[in-house]
Amino acid sequence: SNSVRIALLPGDGIGREVTEAATFVMEKLARRHAIGIATDSLEAGAFAYQATGTALSDETFDRAKSADAILLGAMGWPGIRYDDGTEIAPQLDLRFRLGLYAGVRPIRAIPGVPLPLSDPRAAKIDLVILRESTEGLFYARGRGTVTDDAEARDTMLITRATTERLSRFAFRLAERRAARMGRSQRVTLVDKANVFTSMAFMRKVFLEIAAEFPGVPADAHYVDAMALDLIRKPWDFDVLPTENMFGDILSDLGAGLVGGMGYAPSADIGDTHAVFQPSHGTGPDIAGKGIANPTAAILSAALMLDWLAMRGAGQGFADAATELESAVDAAFAKGLRSAEFGGVGTKGVAEAIAEQIK
Amino acid sequence: SNSVRIALLPGDGIGREVTEAATFVMEKLARRHAIGIATDSLEAGAFAYQATGTALSDETFDRAKSADAILLGAMGWPGIRYDDGTEIAPQLDLRFRLGLYAGVRPIRAIPGVPLPLSDPRAAKIDLVILRESTEGLFYARGRGTVTDDAEARDTMLITRATTERLSRFAFRLAERRAARMGRSQRVTLVDKANVFTSMAFMRKVFLEIAAEFPGVPADAHYVDAMALDLIRKPWDFDVLPTENMFGDILSDLGAGLVGGMGYAPSADIGDTHAVFQPSHGTGPDIAGKGIANPTAAILSAALMLDWLAMRGAGQGFADAATELESAVDAAFAKGLRSAEFGGVGTKGVAEAIAEQIK
Ligand SMILES: CC(C)[C@H](C(=O)O)[C@@H](O)C(=O)O
Ligand SMILES: CC(C)[C@H](C(=O)O)[C@@H](O)C(=O)O
Repeated sequence: SNSVRIALLPGDGIGREVTEAATFVMEKLARRHAIGIATDSLEAGAFAYQATGTALSDETFDRAKSADAILLGAMGWPGIRYDDGTEIAPQLDLRFRLGLYAGVRPIRAIPGVPLPLSDPRAAKIDLVILRESTEGLFYARGRGTVTDDAEARDTMLITRATTERLSRFAFRLAERRAARMGRSQRVTLVDKANVFTSMAFMRKVFLEIAAEFPGVPADAHYVDAMALDLIRKPWDFDVLPTENMFGDILSDLGAGLVGGMGYAPSADIGDTHAVFQPSHGTGPDIAGKGIANPTAAILSAALMLDWLAMRGAGQGFADAATELESAVDAAFAKGLRSAEFGGVGTKGVAEAIAEQIK
Repeated sequence: SNSVRIALLPGDGIGREVTEAATFVMEKLARRHAIGIATDSLEAGAFAYQATGTALSDETFDRAKSADAILLGAMGWPGIRYDDGTEIAPQLDLRFRLGLYAGVRPIRAIPGVPLPLSDPRAAKIDLVILRESTEGLFYARGRGTVTDDAEARDTMLITRATTERLSRFAFRLAERRAARMGRSQRVTLVDKANVFTSMAFMRKVFLEIAAEFPGVPADAHYVDAMALDLIRKPWDFDVLPTENMFGDILSDLGAGLVGGMGYAPSADIGDTHAVFQPSHGTGPDIAGKGIANPTAAILSAALMLDWLAMRGAGQGFADAATELESAVDAAFAKGLRSAEFGGVGTKGVAEAIAEQIK
């Protein structure tokens, strides 16, 4: 069929504003490509927790799980916390419960968007941080201990099974990118194998899987050196699989290189399910003002359409994904500026992008 | 007395070249300020391991420990590893065994050194990453486990005792910087308290200590957001205490903002001992060519002289530290360029800096 049902979880704060903008753009795209995108709007997040006592109810989870894909805004709010003091973050529960091990975080310079690095090669930045999203240090979430108010521990877990899957995902992504971009794509594991047993294990398993993909160059880099190289020469990297916590840090760093969180889409992908969401948070300082940049949410929708196409939703979805990314690029190339850079608000950005859809 | 004995551990690769340059500059400084700096050269590192089977012998450790301060070059070499595959890194052993919990990593824009960020405010970058250096995730070093070739674990440890000491160090450093710079200095803990028990514990203890320093503004920031903000507005931050692994990543990121590792000094400070070393590694690709930038090593020597002065070595050491930092600034302001930026090699940089010492 050429029709899908997506679960829409707007969440909190600017999550609601940017998902509305993404929906607006997708509607035009759906008409243009004659594809069907039915949305099922669901409540989850910090305000849902405040109102009902659960951040993500079983019913909401089941409905989201049964949809073809999940589009999420952002979740969490200052002052609304679980009893243990950690943040309301149902997006983490979705990653764990749906086995979304591949956190795809594209870092791409959009022509026309101001970049912080003065080197002109920054315009060529086009890499993907592939953040493992179900284990690593985040395995510790909800499992940490405090003893006698004197010390606290959290455990990092790396499994062979997940590392194999993540690595294969990375090499396949590199092959796909190479075909699309017409040039070779390297896969660089980011680890700290020089110090940690778990990281040496992750590197070992990664290199085993690399041998299955002789056509894709592979290497490994320490995470501290990578933080430096992402400043020095981010245009040199392609696909960067890494541990969960490292990926959390590096993907925000990477977003900074291409204009900030307003330009950083993401996809958390498993073998059967996927969640798409802008990498940014709920923006408590700007929420309700209509100035949140919806570009990350709109690009996340493009990732979703592309994934749906790969899952068999049909060529119309593939075409829609391609056109949506081109529309974003065209709008900014023609002078669109988002509010962070003194330009237009949420609606203005969404309309300018929609206008580029024929 | 106005004379000290320092243990010099040149280590491997460019570690040897940059410590030689630092020694050359310190000799001139010692004559000028009539202070005595006797050096005890000791072998440790990857090539020592290869030659003798130990990377840091007990005798070397004892001699280093009995010196007034330790100046280290860099250690480690590709292909020379411990049996478990991790790197030869006696600098980590020194941190653990001497209790050097405060990893001081200044990130300061030196006038004249090319910066990667185009924003003119980048010239004002002057912050300190304060990397806890004895526990955190690095507690796992040598303790990690692999089970059935199927999964691996490493444990992160945060103790109240170390967090209290690190926090007090941060606030005292902020007070000292405020006095020297003539403007208020904020202390910003970098954690991931929204997800991890150990990090929520670290934040709790930090805020308790913050209450002891009502005159110093304090806040806390998530590590991912900090990675972004260090790109967006690094000029906004002052003193950033953080967990060991986070500090490792952020200090390399920070070095990238001020010209790279060649400009990143460090001090690992405990209650009784301290090690000073450039943040960079042994540079296997450039070792032996005479082109390594010795600025980080020379600035590390300045940190050492300053610390020795605080420990009672006398005013001559304080003056020497101040003059050395000024000499570095003056040399670059007058057009000195290091080899990474198409300029002169190790000796050229050292001589240009020495020339600024009256
Ligand atoms: C909100 C937070 C728990 C989350 C994370 O750390 O994964 C966010 O930073 C992200 O990157 O999606
Ligand atoms: C060499 C390595 C083990 C070391 C570390 O991770 O601490 C280095 O990166 C540093 O920052 O001093």
